[in-house]
Amino acid sequence: MKTFETIEGGVCAAKGFKASGTYCGIKKWGAGGEVPDGNESPVSSTKNDIAMLFADVPCNTAGVYTSNKVKGAPVIVTKNNLVKSGGKAQAVIVNSGNANTCNADGEEKALEMCRLTGEALGIPSEQVIVASTGVIGQVLPIEPIRNAVPELVKKLSYDGNIEAATAIMTTDTVKKEYAVKFTIDGKECHMGGMAKGSGMIHPNMATTLNFITTDCAVSAEMLQKVLSETVRITYNCLSVDGDQSTNDTCMLMSSGLAGNKEISSVDGDFETFRDALYQVMANLTRMLAKDGEGASRLITCVCSSAPDLDTAIIAAKSVIRSPLVKTAIFGADANCGRIACALGYAETDIDVNKFDIFLSSAAGKIQTYEKGMSIEFSEDTAKKILLEDEIEILIELNSGDASVTAWGCDLTYDYVKINGDYRS
Amino acid sequence: MKTFETIEGGVCAAKGFKASGTYCGIKKWGAGGEVPDGNESPVSSTKNDIAMLFADVPCNTAGVYTSNKVKGAPVIVTKNNLVKSGGKAQAVIVNSGNANTCNADGEEKALEMCRLTGEALGIPSEQVIVASTGVIGQVLPIEPIRNAVPELVKKLSYDGNIEAATAIMTTDTVKKEYAVKFTIDGKECHMGGMAKGSGMIHPNMATTLNFITTDCAVSAEMLQKVLSETVRITYNCLSVDGDQSTNDTCMLMSSGLAGNKEISSVDGDFETFRDALYQVMANLTRMLAKDGEGASRLITCVCSSAPDLDTAIIAAKSVIRSPLVKTAIFGADANCGRIACALGYAETDIDVNKFDIFLSSAAGKIQTYEKGMSIEFSEDTAKKILLEDEIEILIELNSGDASVTAWGCDLTYDYVKINGDYRS
Repeated sequence: MKTFETIEGGVCAAKGFKASGTYCGIKKWGAGGEVPDGNESPVSSTKNDIAMLFADVPCNTAGVYTSNKVKGAPVIVTKNNLVKSGGKAQAVIVNSGNANTCNADGEEKALEMCRLTGEALGIPSEQVIVASTGVIGQVLPIEPIRNAVPELVKKLSYDGNIEAATAIMTTDTVKKEYAVKFTIDGKECHMGGMAKGSGMIHPNMATTLNFITTDCAVSAEMLQKVLSETVRITYNCLSVDGDQSTNDTCMLMSSGLAGNKEISSVDGDFETFRDALYQVMANLTRMLAKDGEGASRLITCVCSSAPDLDTAIIAAKSVIRSPLVKTAIFGADANCGRIACALGYAETDIDVNKFDIFLSSAAGKIQTYEKGMSIEFSEDTAKKILLEDEIEILIELNSGDASVTAWGCDLTYDYVKINGDYRS
Repeated sequence: MKTFETIEGGVCAAKGFKASGTYCGIKKWGAGGEVPDGNESPVSSTKNDIAMLFADVPCNTAGVYTSNKVKGAPVIVTKNNLVKSGGKAQAVIVNSGNANTCNADGEEKALEMCRLTGEALGIPSEQVIVASTGVIGQVLPIEPIRNAVPELVKKLSYDGNIEAATAIMTTDTVKKEYAVKFTIDGKECHMGGMAKGSGMIHPNMATTLNFITTDCAVSAEMLQKVLSETVRITYNCLSVDGDQSTNDTCMLMSSGLAGNKEISSVDGDFETFRDALYQVMANLTRMLAKDGEGASRLITCVCSSAPDLDTAIIAAKSVIRSPLVKTAIFGADANCGRIACALGYAETDIDVNKFDIFLSSAAGKIQTYEKGMSIEFSEDTAKKILLEDEIEILIELNSGDASVTAWGCDLTYDYVKINGDYRS
């Protein structure tokens, strides 16, 4: 797989994308960013709670959405809009602080957000993508959004990416942006994304809000294909707490302004584009895991020599999801029996007499299991390895050639604190 | 469903069952029960770490075991023993502090435990059930067990149930025993059980060690049938942390000494026996949930008016398992959007436009969702309800007649503490 030079600019890195963000009053702290009385939870570093993206031209747009049967109204409206518009979108409106889910008037409000945005930008409302994130089951106030749209339009800028990336945060403690440049058909192309998500994060599907833009010209069909394939091995290999959100949305928009010949089949250019997308999405996924609610350690689980990709994904995710593995890593305890246990209950056909387990970090690497059985290792070395901030659990299934990386984090007191104290 | 009078005696309540327990040195604290330096975790109130059961006669015996592909050596040996003995067992040997799982010499050690027990009791070793619980992947020392067997035999007593019930505890803070009496064929029958389990608890299968004895005569075939059916709606509806153990074992032994005509078909007597078994197992399950690692609140989720039992079970378990629901209950926060979310990602066909959600406890009952949408409710009343020790989440799917109860607990700082600090 190729890797590419990273660049600044996030969701505005590609040609033709403006962004903006502001505070409209949906998030429950004051306009100065202060935490309300009695709420001691960490909050995002910004007061922004509503963001807008606007492309210079209508974009080929692909989407992947939550598979939760309880779907947020914005998910339903966005899907319908893209059907109506023939897969074209030119703008995004997204709020944090309220998921607009399980509300009797949810779809009406989500449609109104599109209408207000389309009207202000002079585009058809079905070319607007709408997303919301926050508390489920509380009525979304539309007035603050109505009041904010003119300001969002006015603030739109080719370097508004940070304003937008911070506006979509909920319990996130850092913004998540990543961008690369690459060459297709002799033209310099750019791709960048922003993501949010800290709790209620689990596959399937993106389990967060993710917006990725590119100026590389790609056909609608190829765009959907590459997005679906890449979601499977990036966002869908992420688990913070095993809870799958109702509002997960991942959008990929192509302005085509790089001037390349449109990618319309699976060729070398497609592969380059796919590698660039993997790099952007894998890095955003890693940021999401590292900023998982209450996380003190990033856990990367690499499952290799699997009989096929599905087996690798299921095995790696089972380990990443296990509360007992997560608490052991929090305690820097090399209790690898818990990893073996999670491999054993993974819902796939693993040969339990073949797997090896290794622990690795900047401090070193050791093997703890061989052919499904525990082996002797230095507890001191293991402790040193596990006291680092970023831990790798390496699993060799010794049954084939497939491999995958999954991302997660430890389970800490702060996860309990954040979710016990705060209606997030 | 009939309910029956509860009695004392636990696993010795039925005629013909003796039990004993002692400390042999496998658990890592001292013989006086003191906690080793640096280990501040709660430990069981007893120092015992090995137990024996012995029946006056060979018993028809049914078993249900973990479906984890990584199986503890004792699980493999017990299953093989019962095949060899034609479903008859007369004794049980069980240790805590070491799971004897993922060890290269695990089966050899488990077989040796059976051999030592059979020899000391004068019965064939294949009529011995062996079980182990504790840390995975550490070599089980056999010498302490060899030394303890004569003492266990000597201490065997018709009121040794408490010695045994405490010996199988790991991070449990209380012993779990329950017994009832009932009448079959004009004869007074008794049934009692003991269970252990606090962490690494999740369906499928019992996710704990469970031993149930009865003097009611039941054929081997009916015994297996009633056990499998009852496990499905009791232990398999329990989740503490979503981790499924490698060593789960549930055994039901019938001495037949009550003198009734053997139950050998699905008739009225079978139904009475089934109701008695449900009462014993449901109450043990409830005790396991209430004593879940770090738990401060028992959560009971009753899913009613489901189209079928499977749907009810999957829905109720999805709610009970959700870390976000568990932390909300810990925080006494009526964040029922998380319950709706867990219903939505439950892997079954729920009509998300029909479900109602209620919260209930000794302090009252309120409805929070109707037809899949949030409705207004008093936050004050909800808070009062959720501040009780035992919380009921009631879900009406409004789609049929099936219903089930699932049991779980809140997710607290102490869960993280116990599992981060202690190689349990």
